[in-house]
Amino acid sequence: MSPQMKIVRAPKSMQLLAQRWREQGQKIVLVPTMGALHNGHLALIRRGRQQGDKLVVSIFVNPTQFGPREDFSRYPRTFEADKQRCLAGGADALFCPEPDDMYPPDFDTWVNVEVLTSILEGAARTAHFRGVCTVVLKLLNTVTPDVAVFGQKDYQQCVVIKRMVDDLNLPVKVVIGPTVREPDGLALSSRNVYLTVEQRRTAGVLYQALSLAKEQITRGKTNPARLAGQMERIIRRNSDFEIEYIEFADPATLKRQTIVHPPAVILLAARLGATRFIDNVIVR
Amino acid sequence: MSPQMKIVRAPKSMQLLAQRWREQGQKIVLVPTMGALHNGHLALIRRGRQQGDKLVVSIFVNPTQFGPREDFSRYPRTFEADKQRCLAGGADALFCPEPDDMYPPDFDTWVNVEVLTSILEGAARTAHFRGVCTVVLKLLNTVTPDVAVFGQKDYQQCVVIKRMVDDLNLPVKVVIGPTVREPDGLALSSRNVYLTVEQRRTAGVLYQALSLAKEQITRGKTNPARLAGQMERIIRRNSDFEIEYIEFADPATLKRQTIVHPPAVILLAARLGATRFIDNVIVR
Repeated sequence: MSPQMKIVRAPKSMQLLAQRWREQGQKIVLVPTMGALHNGHLALIRRGRQQGDKLVVSIFVNPTQFGPREDFSRYPRTFEADKQRCLAGGADALFCPEPDDMYPPDFDTWVNVEVLTSILEGAARTAHFRGVCTVVLKLLNTVTPDVAVFGQKDYQQCVVIKRMVDDLNLPVKVVIGPTVREPDGLALSSRNVYLTVEQRRTAGVLYQALSLAKEQITRGKTNPARLAGQMERIIRRNSDFEIEYIEFADPATLKRQTIVHPPAVILLAARLGATRFIDNVIVR
Repeated sequence: MSPQMKIVRAPKSMQLLAQRWREQGQKIVLVPTMGALHNGHLALIRRGRQQGDKLVVSIFVNPTQFGPREDFSRYPRTFEADKQRCLAGGADALFCPEPDDMYPPDFDTWVNVEVLTSILEGAARTAHFRGVCTVVLKLLNTVTPDVAVFGQKDYQQCVVIKRMVDDLNLPVKVVIGPTVREPDGLALSSRNVYLTVEQRRTAGVLYQALSLAKEQITRGKTNPARLAGQMERIIRRNSDFEIEYIEFADPATLKRQTIVHPPAVILLAARLGATRFIDNVIVR
């Protein structure tokens, strides 16, 4: 482990380190993660590295964004490998608080983007975005970055966080990094380790369906039911995925498009066994 | 109007002014108000003046903390007099955004201190503290003060804001200024202008009741029902106030004391005609 990368657990220590950097006029970048870092994260870290002087990667598996029947306890934790990846990505600090550091016993304050989280993932996962917004705000207040980098794979999360940043007058620039994919199109996700070999074999079908719809929209197709129907057929024919939703929406507001037209984002959620997958593509 | 005090309406301009001050190493103090400034506010402003280099007073009648049947539209607005008072108090900037500046049409983000706002004022005024917390967080993010000064008269608000500041890792020191009273004990409040001459004559009784209970607790009386009963008798005998609640609580957590003992805060809400009054005293 190089001495250049500080490992910081206490929020107060992280805040003091960031304050020192700010007083030196350093521009701070934050890449918030839940660890189990894969090449998608690494792309965000490299992107972050270019955006400022001091790069902080946070690793915190945030309990408050998991539902009671979700995978908080079994979520993959690979701290030693994560450290090496942060170091390789040029991080100056790895901020890795424990749940008790972030949520002391009398913790009582919650942030919610209300209307924007009533749809899509928010409809499927009650209180998920309340946990996301609260923890992201806490991370932003602790690290005080000039720039924060999020991954496009969690598309609604990106829109929600941008909304929160604007609404709460937070002085941070939100940068969205593109989704990194396996050769067959499967979006990289820490949850891909839950897939069996057989499930993994067919998982690329989600991106195939998204790509087909994108092509159709580019060619002028506008009927959301027909577009979704084509996507469903590809997915059903080639996998055991159970589709939760397919939506066509405005990329900035997530308002549903009843007549699909670029710019649009195609959003998809599907379940394979106990595991939920989300993916999206933008049609510009 | 002296050229020393800047009047700033746009949040973005306020943020840039504060940023410039911070880069110069100036310590910033914020006194958030809803205007209609009285001597209680002036005491907070003078207190704030001593706490740093640059003093910002904000004046914003925050619509989101008023209930639908509350007094938002008739709340007193005395901007020219307020300006003079801010100037007299040594403010460097008066930040006075309009509702549209703080809540653009697609505004969607809300902050809530959940358990702590389910009691007392929060029980009586649904969504009041959600509005308070959201606007205070926005003001803090816009002015980026090192110190923020609040008045003890809104005691639960002080506890709620301290909780929010701790929970969200906000780098600001919260200072509480004592309640300023009329000679008969009535706590100064912008809403005192709603009182008729006859109502005003008896309004000091709330503080008399609080003071009596404080004396009894200091002497070792511990029974909350008996203490509240004595307070109620004084108030009923000498005024037309309708009591909403009398509570004895821990000053730090607002947990109700079933056996009253110092340190305690005695909290009271009462109604006279259409107007609600709150007051409190601390027993140390």
